Amino acid sequence: MKPMGPVPPFFEGEEGMLLIGGCGAASLVDEAGDTPLFVYDMGIVERQVRDLRDAMPAQLSIHYAVKANPYPALLERMARLVDGFDVASGGELARALEAGMDAAHVSFAGPGKRDDELAAAIDAGVTLNLESEGEARRALAIAEKRGRTPRLAVRVNPDFDLKGSGMRMGGGAKPFGVDADRAAGLARTLIDAGADWRGWHIFAGSQALAAEALIETQAATVGLAARLSDAVGVAPPLVNLGGGFGIPYFPGDQRLDIAPIGDALSQTLQARADILADSEFAMELGRWLVGEAGVYLTRVVDVKQSQGETFVVVDGGLHHQLAASGNFGTVVRRNYPMAVANRYGASPAEEAVTVVGCLCTPIDKLGDKVALPPMVEGDLIAIFAAGAYGASASPSAFLGHPPALELLLG
Amino acid sequence: MKPMGPVPPFFEGEEGMLLIGGCGAASLVDEAGDTPLFVYDMGIVERQVRDLRDAMPAQLSIHYAVKANPYPALLERMARLVDGFDVASGGELARALEAGMDAAHVSFAGPGKRDDELAAAIDAGVTLNLESEGEARRALAIAEKRGRTPRLAVRVNPDFDLKGSGMRMGGGAKPFGVDADRAAGLARTLIDAGADWRGWHIFAGSQALAAEALIETQAATVGLAARLSDAVGVAPPLVNLGGGFGIPYFPGDQRLDIAPIGDALSQTLQARADILADSEFAMELGRWLVGEAGVYLTRVVDVKQSQGETFVVVDGGLHHQLAASGNFGTVVRRNYPMAVANRYGASPAEEAVTVVGCLCTPIDKLGDKVALPPMVEGDLIAIFAAGAYGASASPSAFLGHPPALELLLG
Repeated sequence: MKPMGPVPPFFEGEEGMLLIGGCGAASLVDEAGDTPLFVYDMGIVERQVRDLRDAMPAQLSIHYAVKANPYPALLERMARLVDGFDVASGGELARALEAGMDAAHVSFAGPGKRDDELAAAIDAGVTLNLESEGEARRALAIAEKRGRTPRLAVRVNPDFDLKGSGMRMGGGAKPFGVDADRAAGLARTLIDAGADWRGWHIFAGSQALAAEALIETQAATVGLAARLSDAVGVAPPLVNLGGGFGIPYFPGDQRLDIAPIGDALSQTLQARADILADSEFAMELGRWLVGEAGVYLTRVVDVKQSQGETFVVVDGGLHHQLAASGNFGTVVRRNYPMAVANRYGASPAEEAVTVVGCLCTPIDKLGDKVALPPMVEGDLIAIFAAGAYGASASPSAFLGHPPALELLLG
Repeated sequence: MKPMGPVPPFFEGEEGMLLIGGCGAASLVDEAGDTPLFVYDMGIVERQVRDLRDAMPAQLSIHYAVKANPYPALLERMARLVDGFDVASGGELARALEAGMDAAHVSFAGPGKRDDELAAAIDAGVTLNLESEGEARRALAIAEKRGRTPRLAVRVNPDFDLKGSGMRMGGGAKPFGVDADRAAGLARTLIDAGADWRGWHIFAGSQALAAEALIETQAATVGLAARLSDAVGVAPPLVNLGGGFGIPYFPGDQRLDIAPIGDALSQTLQARADILADSEFAMELGRWLVGEAGVYLTRVVDVKQSQGETFVVVDGGLHHQLAASGNFGTVVRRNYPMAVANRYGASPAEEAVTVVGCLCTPIDKLGDKVALPPMVEGDLIAIFAAGAYGASASPSAFLGHPPALELLLG
């Protein structure tokens, strides 16, 4: 038997049926019409936002990183819940505006912005977080050609990283942002060129579960923003502190305790340098806001034996939930939290089972030797922590199965 | 510097421009209208089929595994080139029939076939390669309900594996097929139930580059088919020997020498057991037929420096070519073959560069410290070996960029 990650603390069963947003999983499948199905509980998202606002300094703006989950119905709700959206492509930009977010509160980061994406962003009046001197040159030229004043910020490759983060995005040579030692020079160029100077975007890493590391990184980020601003001699209207808050996926992962992070950030901001006195500060979160709110429901198609082992085959798979198969940025495959939705709380079988997707490839494994109650065809399996980097981050066309359905609750 | 895999031997340059199917890469991009672009050269596919037919025993049927590349224009051409299609979902089944392949030459394997997929296959008259006793029971029940005689084969989980294969699909406990020691019993049940008995599907692994291993596996496969058929007491109309032929992707990989495989298979078939005397034999290949025929063309958006390293940022990425980023079934990331299409054959720069995609995530790396000629914005990078498990096996919606364009040549 191999352990699974922890089920998020928001879920319970009623008469053996998993409840999501107060509704039974089976009836949600009926409502959607089929499996596989992603269900997103907006109640959990709202709670995360509320907890975050309670913990963080009142002045901090909360931005949502659209890449985590761009489902349109969810975006529309997010547009009214948070203070800004961060987008990573022209496509996400269009979705952000369609969802009703004011362009003045949208910023666009990403290392490979094409000219057509820069033009769309400048036309819409969103802030470009510039990733290089070359991109800055292109943005200025495009804005001039269009007779517009571009809203420009500089994304900084910080000279530190977020320790313990699942993905380091700063520290060392990186494709993201401008090295800290060149960032002030670029900002000066932008200001001199007449751009609407928006400030700094400093993103050191993501998926961190250690509060101490985040506290340290945020303090370093504010310090770096101050040093850079002093070097430019202009106060930044906005300092985007990045995100990095992780959620538990794997055995042993603990939920992040955000209270000490908020306390430390309050102190950091209170003690900030004079040049940042009137700056707005934002935190940019994706996964932490929506990840635990999503459940992927997939139906058992077959239960079979092979050489003494039991395989449970479901109608979903890595084409919808690539990350749960261990094929998306993880080196060693580990088990996501999962449960049998229609036998919720039932005792596990004596023998562990391996849950595989319906794809005809050995990498389509969703649960490796997991302890689950005995199953039969037609049972519903729930894979938790599926609200971020799920449906949109999976190869949905692979092997020609239909895309997953999606449903927003609450 | 880190090495790259070998460029397939079908490509050359003309006045510094990569030719694909005799056309310059830049003019192909003009024709398609944009980058990123997958170009598939049907000339290479035809050559692979011809080489294969030349090397293999004349009686061997060649099947195409649609999952490798389901691009409709390519499927239409394949339908006239090969003797059958193997599909892995109801969606692929529909595409196979739309492409003009006769249902009598289509077989459907896959561990998680839903009832609606079984019904579609039975209605169309394609062969179901049954993966378990439970699936057999469902198929028989569905066929009876519809008043049809189902065409049924049994997929066998062989008691051996394909040594050195990139993905083992036989040997040990597996989600694929019925264990060899239960396969004859299941076949007997199907025949007794009045099904149209089609024979055996035995697939031991994929992406093997060692001829010896494939020779050994094919001999073992024919032997297993004979033993199983003897146990059933009925000759199998078809024995699908599986595939497993790999193509070079990584440094040190050598192209498979198929001549000795064909010679050995001829001998194996000549010496086959009496019960297989009138059986048809088929080989099922996907990647080997189309993989080397595909080139992914992506444009350089930015060339930037970070802490002494050069990053080349392109407008494509893992959302189109996940495997090249090392996030699809590989444990250690290695470099696919790549080149600067519009400086083909030019000397590499002294300094290695890292080629990253446009996605705002550190896992979107396409070339790690590769030796390429000096580049500027607007250059075209070609990633080779992109004809199989490329566009359809990548998370195309991730981060909201447009899907890649596709173009079939020849």
